[in-house]
Amino acid sequence: MAFDPQCIFCRIVRGEAEASVVYRDDRVWAFLDLHPLTPGHLLVVPTQHAAGLDGLDDPTASAMMVAGKRLAQALRRPPLGVAGVNLVLSDGAAAGQEVFHCHLHVIPRRAGDGFGFRRPPTSRVARRDELDRMAAIIRGGLGQAGS
Amino acid sequence: MAFDPQCIFCRIVRGEAEASVVYRDDRVWAFLDLHPLTPGHLLVVPTQHAAGLDGLDDPTASAMMVAGKRLAQALRRPPLGVAGVNLVLSDGAAAGQEVFHCHLHVIPRRAGDGFGFRRPPTSRVARRDELDRMAAIIRGGLGQAGS
Repeated sequence: MAFDPQCIFCRIVRGEAEASVVYRDDRVWAFLDLHPLTPGHLLVVPTQHAAGLDGLDDPTASAMMVAGKRLAQALRRPPLGVAGVNLVLSDGAAAGQEVFHCHLHVIPRRAGDGFGFRRPPTSRVARRDELDRMAAIIRGGLGQAGS
Repeated sequence: MAFDPQCIFCRIVRGEAEASVVYRDDRVWAFLDLHPLTPGHLLVVPTQHAAGLDGLDDPTASAMMVAGKRLAQALRRPPLGVAGVNLVLSDGAAAGQEVFHCHLHVIPRRAGDGFGFRRPPTSRVARRDELDRMAAIIRGGLGQAGS
């Protein structure tokens, strides 16, 4: 059992730290974020410690997404009936990851809730030749996949 | 075969519209976003049309996440070697969804790239009793799950 005694999410799954749990199975737990971006903000975490995406096996990655889907469906039903949901996974400090136990944010959205995405000011429609060149590079990276 | 002739992602999967494709299998395709938030920004889309999360079966939701994981791994390897990756799924217009064929964004992250999340100004640490009350409501919603 992969467990990091310093990791807050590992400690929650072991029952050593408090959380308001919504769902649990063998592969994933879901509980409310202590610093909610919007009311009802949830985290889906694997029960086995993995710092990031690279440490997740496929069944665990799948279980995280299926749980995220079901939680989104639950949030969109009455009585909460939220207008939308964002699923967000931040892999690496450069992506905004703060707790290094991989987690999927499930963020309920309501009109005017103040949450959103910052688009880089330089963002523009790309040219097809730029995209094709990038696609070839990424396909090369996929070809080296070890897991 | 669920197909919407007005849907740009359906048209890509049918070969009727252009895309710079990186990966494809029976359940999902991945290609570069024409309006990249950062260089290498990819979309993972189900081959079958579904407007949102509610229309995805579990194997398709799983396949989207597994593809997202593998693409993130590819982006983080040389030669791109990006510092981080965000996976983002926006379900509903209130969540920022613009194309109503469910899709997972795979957004490469580099220091100072200008992409990010806007935290609501009212965001604060929640009280445990507030979280416990919300958890009970969401567990109730999960109990009604039809799929």
